[in-house]
Amino acid sequence: MTDLDQRLGDVFRVVDDHRDLYVQWLQELCRIPSVAAQNRGMEEAAQQVRRYLEALAAGPAEAGGTVQLVPTSGFPVVYAEFPGTSPRTLLFYNHYDVQPEDPVELWHYPPFGAEIHDGVMYARGVADNKGNLIARIAAVHALKQALGELPLRVKFVAEGEEEIGSVHLPEFCRNHPDLLQADGCIWEFGYKDAEGRLQVYLGVKGILYVELVCRGASQDLHSANAAIVPNPAWRLVQALNTLKDPATGRVQIDGFYDDVEPPTEQDEAMLAQMTYSEEAMKQRLKIPAFVNGVTGQDLKRQLVFSPTCNICGLTSGYQGEGSKTVLPSVARAKLDFRLVPRQDPHKILAQLKEHLRKHGYGDIEVIEWGLEHPARTRPGETIARSVAAMAEKVYGQAPNVLPSSAGTGPMYEVCHRFGTPAVSVGVGNFASNNHAPNENIRVEDFVQGIKLMAAVMLDFAQRDLDLGTR
Amino acid sequence: MTDLDQRLGDVFRVVDDHRDLYVQWLQELCRIPSVAAQNRGMEEAAQQVRRYLEALAAGPAEAGGTVQLVPTSGFPVVYAEFPGTSPRTLLFYNHYDVQPEDPVELWHYPPFGAEIHDGVMYARGVADNKGNLIARIAAVHALKQALGELPLRVKFVAEGEEEIGSVHLPEFCRNHPDLLQADGCIWEFGYKDAEGRLQVYLGVKGILYVELVCRGASQDLHSANAAIVPNPAWRLVQALNTLKDPATGRVQIDGFYDDVEPPTEQDEAMLAQMTYSEEAMKQRLKIPAFVNGVTGQDLKRQLVFSPTCNICGLTSGYQGEGSKTVLPSVARAKLDFRLVPRQDPHKILAQLKEHLRKHGYGDIEVIEWGLEHPARTRPGETIARSVAAMAEKVYGQAPNVLPSSAGTGPMYEVCHRFGTPAVSVGVGNFASNNHAPNENIRVEDFVQGIKLMAAVMLDFAQRDLDLGTR
Repeated sequence: MTDLDQRLGDVFRVVDDHRDLYVQWLQELCRIPSVAAQNRGMEEAAQQVRRYLEALAAGPAEAGGTVQLVPTSGFPVVYAEFPGTSPRTLLFYNHYDVQPEDPVELWHYPPFGAEIHDGVMYARGVADNKGNLIARIAAVHALKQALGELPLRVKFVAEGEEEIGSVHLPEFCRNHPDLLQADGCIWEFGYKDAEGRLQVYLGVKGILYVELVCRGASQDLHSANAAIVPNPAWRLVQALNTLKDPATGRVQIDGFYDDVEPPTEQDEAMLAQMTYSEEAMKQRLKIPAFVNGVTGQDLKRQLVFSPTCNICGLTSGYQGEGSKTVLPSVARAKLDFRLVPRQDPHKILAQLKEHLRKHGYGDIEVIEWGLEHPARTRPGETIARSVAAMAEKVYGQAPNVLPSSAGTGPMYEVCHRFGTPAVSVGVGNFASNNHAPNENIRVEDFVQGIKLMAAVMLDFAQRDLDLGTR
Repeated sequence: MTDLDQRLGDVFRVVDDHRDLYVQWLQELCRIPSVAAQNRGMEEAAQQVRRYLEALAAGPAEAGGTVQLVPTSGFPVVYAEFPGTSPRTLLFYNHYDVQPEDPVELWHYPPFGAEIHDGVMYARGVADNKGNLIARIAAVHALKQALGELPLRVKFVAEGEEEIGSVHLPEFCRNHPDLLQADGCIWEFGYKDAEGRLQVYLGVKGILYVELVCRGASQDLHSANAAIVPNPAWRLVQALNTLKDPATGRVQIDGFYDDVEPPTEQDEAMLAQMTYSEEAMKQRLKIPAFVNGVTGQDLKRQLVFSPTCNICGLTSGYQGEGSKTVLPSVARAKLDFRLVPRQDPHKILAQLKEHLRKHGYGDIEVIEWGLEHPARTRPGETIARSVAAMAEKVYGQAPNVLPSSAGTGPMYEVCHRFGTPAVSVGVGNFASNNHAPNENIRVEDFVQGIKLMAAVMLDFAQRDLDLGTR
């Protein structure tokens, strides 16, 4: 038994002994409805996270640590730093905000109840991303309990605006580059696939989130006027229809694909070993087929490497029960574009506006709700190999390492801008329902996730150090 | 002074003396939120109308009358019949239901407060159609007070489902054809134009009101899935876009225009004398131009003679403040088609379904919310000439007689099916905001409207009778 295995065994026993405490921390945090989009419970959640981190700094270890709420123009960033014995620094990036819980009527349990049923905890934000945040805090707690010290320097950055596009995080990153210096970063999310195999993500897509607002008459009118008064709902439908080819799904905005980096041979190899449970997913979602009938490697490539143009919401006129004969005065569409390296969200926004203008829809207002760059880490980076090795140890099976998630996060601002390689892994599962009703994680996955984080801290503290590489 | 003028003078004095009472009746009725689409206050409103009519039947006139609530599979029809001295029968068609009051935040006064400010009464339903219903009840009251009897047999039909497409009125009409026998009908609505000139309508458009429901995955998903999971909001946008040519606005459903009757020379002549205050309307609505830039006779023809395909509402995904990155599971559009003689709403519904099927959208569910036939009365009918003559007497100016309203009502079921000519006239004004926030009428228009109804009863009782024509 190696020294690492010995220490892993000690830490895992501490985790098992404190299992109820860690579950309780997670429930406490999930019961705070920290919906950034609606400015609910944000201060309370930030303070709660600060309290957990302060308890770690005040723990048995001599060295302690520092915790602060760093103000931004929006919600504050909870920042913490704990010294350790290796020259290495590991950064944990998380967020304490969650998506809105609507449609509430589709939840089987209260969205902010954090109830556990058959070993599954249900709560808005439990998978995205409070389960991961608490798992990392718990891992630091367990390491300190087991070893009396941390094996490397650990930093926590928990922002409060991830679900609204990390609006003020770039400001934080530019004002506090020193706080972000690290040798590797563990990003905020991760899941097991339908076969129970852990997924490790080496990147994120970027995003452009906009709202299109089309205005007609100054007020809603009796729809008898439709014969002569312009209808903004029709106009919005027609404008939206110019954005995408209905047959191919291809985005029709000039230049949209210009900067897209095609997958490399290594990317294709990673895709090939990625499992995507098509039949299970189709059954769960009750859909007959995926977009354009893609399947196999094509489906995986499309998921990971294709940019999107998605309608997140449509609103106009009467939406109640039955009929109301109205000519609406305004129509709105919320759109998100998921972007891949090296698409630039600012450039795409300009192209979108130009597209609307060119097609005669220059009067449609474009509200920016969020812009983020895509980012990707090379699979040979030390942090990537450390996570893969420890995952195999903890889960008894090699993880699927994927070139990128289909989702988005501010990885570019937090990591890639400073040259920090980042890897994302977490405690969610194939049916965690992020951003949807009945969001959940399995309690067992949460406990395993704590162990993985402790193992990565121990392993990354020393991996490759003797080789003089990083 | 003719005998008619003498009697008009007597009745008008009674109207002026009872002005406050009639305004109070109207306020009482407007304070009942009888929204059929939401099943609010319907029983209360029906009972209140019944009470007004029963008070007339119990009034000073010897002959009395009968009042009943006739049940249907939906809301009941309030029916009343009062005997009179002429062999003629006049039917008043009205409704006691109103449109929903949303968006409530745009009202300056409570939608069910019936407050009067600067001589204007504000309430949902005051123009459409409670002001007209009470004006007719008040006119019968005044005639009975002034003359001790009615000059002709009068029938009231007040239904409770006009604003939801008169769903069960055809059932009532087929089960009770005897109750609907009449020599002429005064229809439910009417307005003054921006110059203050009374509009008289000889017909209504038909309607087909449907909701299109497009379904995707069984639940809302994180929008990262948009790369591979079909989005019903996109699909709905694309399906809607096949319905109408964006450049011309022409409906693209095969056969849609096949049965449309073009305007006759007499129709064109009526359109020519119709006033439509284009500049005032554009200013009020804050629109730069009408659909396709139409103006003048073309605009009036389009308003009165063109069928429409209008989006009344769009709903999908996230519609709250800020951003939520969601892939919606369902998207809905509410559409109304205004139809002109001789389009058949059942045929148009079948054509719409076939259109969707043919364009590959056969999976989109089509919910029927209402179907009504168009109807039109010839300008030479006695009731049409009576209304025009009495309007000139009461308002001191010839009214604009229009071939049809741009709006819809069950005139075909109530009148044309039985050969009863119908004319629509009422107490609204150019800015009455039917179906929109701040619906209103001017109190003076209400009082004049009572006088017109009394005059029409007196005139129609004897007009053309000596000629043996009807």
